[in-house]
Amino acid sequence: MPPLGSRLGAEGVGSFFLFACVIGSGIMAENLSGGNYAVALLGNSIATGAILFVLITMLGPISGAHMNPAVSLVAASRRELPWTDAAAYIAAQLSFGISGVWAAHLMFDLPALQLSGKARTGPGQWTGEVIATFGLVLTILGTVKHRREWVPVSVALYITAAYWFTSSTSFANPAITIARSLSDTFAGISPHDVPLFIVAQLTGAALASLAARWLFPTEA
Amino acid sequence: MPPLGSRLGAEGVGSFFLFACVIGSGIMAENLSGGNYAVALLGNSIATGAILFVLITMLGPISGAHMNPAVSLVAASRRELPWTDAAAYIAAQLSFGISGVWAAHLMFDLPALQLSGKARTGPGQWTGEVIATFGLVLTILGTVKHRREWVPVSVALYITAAYWFTSSTSFANPAITIARSLSDTFAGISPHDVPLFIVAQLTGAALASLAARWLFPTEA
Amino acid sequence: MPPLGSRLGAEGVGSFFLFACVIGSGIMAENLSGGNYAVALLGNSIATGAILFVLITMLGPISGAHMNPAVSLVAASRRELPWTDAAAYIAAQLSFGISGVWAAHLMFDLPALQLSGKARTGPGQWTGEVIATFGLVLTILGTVKHRREWVPVSVALYITAAYWFTSSTSFANPAITIARSLSDTFAGISPHDVPLFIVAQLTGAALASLAARWLFPTEA
Amino acid sequence: MPPLGSRLGAEGVGSFFLFACVIGSGIMAENLSGGNYAVALLGNSIATGAILFVLITMLGPISGAHMNPAVSLVAASRRELPWTDAAAYIAAQLSFGISGVWAAHLMFDLPALQLSGKARTGPGQWTGEVIATFGLVLTILGTVKHRREWVPVSVALYITAAYWFTSSTSFANPAITIARSLSDTFAGISPHDVPLFIVAQLTGAALASLAARWLFPTEA
Repeated sequence: MPPLGSRLGAEGVGSFFLFACVIGSGIMAENLSGGNYAVALLGNSIATGAILFVLITMLGPISGAHMNPAVSLVAASRRELPWTDAAAYIAAQLSFGISGVWAAHLMFDLPALQLSGKARTGPGQWTGEVIATFGLVLTILGTVKHRREWVPVSVALYITAAYWFTSSTSFANPAITIARSLSDTFAGISPHDVPLFIVAQLTGAALASLAARWLFPTEA
Repeated sequence: MPPLGSRLGAEGVGSFFLFACVIGSGIMAENLSGGNYAVALLGNSIATGAILFVLITMLGPISGAHMNPAVSLVAASRRELPWTDAAAYIAAQLSFGISGVWAAHLMFDLPALQLSGKARTGPGQWTGEVIATFGLVLTILGTVKHRREWVPVSVALYITAAYWFTSSTSFANPAITIARSLSDTFAGISPHDVPLFIVAQLTGAALASLAARWLFPTEA
Repeated sequence: MPPLGSRLGAEGVGSFFLFACVIGSGIMAENLSGGNYAVALLGNSIATGAILFVLITMLGPISGAHMNPAVSLVAASRRELPWTDAAAYIAAQLSFGISGVWAAHLMFDLPALQLSGKARTGPGQWTGEVIATFGLVLTILGTVKHRREWVPVSVALYITAAYWFTSSTSFANPAITIARSLSDTFAGISPHDVPLFIVAQLTGAALASLAARWLFPTEA
Repeated sequence: MPPLGSRLGAEGVGSFFLFACVIGSGIMAENLSGGNYAVALLGNSIATGAILFVLITMLGPISGAHMNPAVSLVAASRRELPWTDAAAYIAAQLSFGISGVWAAHLMFDLPALQLSGKARTGPGQWTGEVIATFGLVLTILGTVKHRREWVPVSVALYITAAYWFTSSTSFANPAITIARSLSDTFAGISPHDVPLFIVAQLTGAALASLAARWLFPTEA
């Protein structure tokens, strides 16, 4: 495993670009779409999937390219990452990721500091986040085991699909949920709605970790 | 071959996510498209292709990732799967797949139990289902033989294309045909029109199985 | 090399699905697009690229998956295929490909026999066909040499791109040019405009064959 | 390394097709989009990503497939390419690339010689070009090191994403910036705004080269 400094750098650079892409492509898409939000979601979901492939391919060999506290916590619970490293990963994901949100605002000539006013709540969306994060973590654990070289493609395409099949457009990532609350744009979420999204995401991740032990039995 | 329990779990999880994606992305696409159904079909077809890649990559090494009774029946007819296993596969595909439809309804705050009112009938659409399923089964049999590692990409892109070049948007799957009849949304089909779709699909699958013996001759 | 019968079967099945996809996805896209032809071209170009990947991956190991007389003629001129086989390939491409056009019409409840009324002519479009076919043949010859396993991806993405960057939407294939003249739909071309398109395509193919000798010198 | 003549030919052919695609797909997209620029950007970004994959896969084994002076300068600074070769690469990129722009105009029946009137300026866009080029160069250096065979996919998807998440639609290439100033179409940029774009791009490239030494430490 590379030194912790390099790994935190990788988590930071990755989270910066991932979060800048989620927010920035949302702004671009909404600006250009003239109110056709299906086209906006195409741009947003294709861009997010594309950058995920790029970042996981480049940074996976350094840090695992988690860019997601739910993934780091699952890795720690499986003893593939020390808990102290997981805490440092999460700090890097949050701090660099939020910088990425601010960079997106700067690129589009918007005020850096914002709070989202977009309500994202209700049992439908919470169910969506449980299912979305369950699927994401299961995809990672299952694909790493049998077809490791395809993990970047699988994670990218999973998120592209999940933007479409969940009512919340599949955040599936506690750090990006917090970061999105700091952007009053297409991809935002009201700070008030963040806690229950995170509860749903961690629930989905924990369930996936259990399911993986049963579905991929030699793993046990 | 992994134990039957794991394989049924893989068929179940895969069918749950595949069917939830077909229905859910259809709902999202229709909700956002403002009546531009070409944009809606782009979202629906890209999401479906993406999740197919993810599921076949992850679950293929466990169960083959059929998620489709036509594929399981062809496998049994080629003696690659015992007939009793094929029957259990189909039961898992149907039960978990229908749960995926209901989960999609729940995520989008719709009543779980629905019946579709969308007519899909006529010689054009039946021809489409014969051709679509013929192409799907031929793709699987031909690609497994020569370029096994590309099967998930091929199946995903085949379905993405077939959504566009068949008038029925290419169901090509008896279980998903039944499940779609339980959703009165973009991807639905009236229960009344289900039987002839399934006849067309099984016809296409049987023809492809024959064609594969001739096209890929060392297979014989 | 597999027996000629299998190879002609592969060229036939491939041309059937390729041409059915080009025409069928054009009909679907135009039907649904409500007059937004950029969305229609997205559907048409994504579907065509997707099916090209599928067919070349599946059928390449049998016949080379030319599905294009320009490619078969280049192969013969490079002594990779006997001239008599090339003639048989072209006959299969035309006959099965035209059947694919008719199948598309049947699927969409249109009269099978049609003639296109869509003018596609002028120096801009002829230049486009020279450039499009030059790029296609160069892509095949260059990629086969250094990165053979990526040929299906490259050809698929080349055509997806070329639909957008040429004014003719890049036919780049004499057989598909003839077949498209038999469809009065989105992807059609007036029979009157076919001959000069084919001249342009063969010119581009011949130039690419020469350029490949120089660009990939150990080939000489 | 192949002879310089072949390498310059590869840089030239690649830049011709890349620049023709950027400009041509922009013209096609704008012509067809009916003023929905999100759809136009989808066509433009998908076509550009697709052709990048094709060209890097085909020409990478010959010249490295830079098609970008920023990349050639970074290669020279890392002593992977003689400075005199880098100068020749850049000359080929500019001259053939501009020919590609003119070919796009010719294909779409537009006057060959044009100057763009589209203003692209301001701190937001300059920040965007720094970030875009930083990410592009880091992607190349990081991916070449650990997963060389995926470089064409990564560069293609990086640019597809960056079209969406930067306010400038991510030129990230001094040669294409100059070439775009010669086209008064969708992808153009006023000649007056070119110098600061290039400054921003070279700044981003230099920062990425430094970051790569730290992030990928055995590289040092």
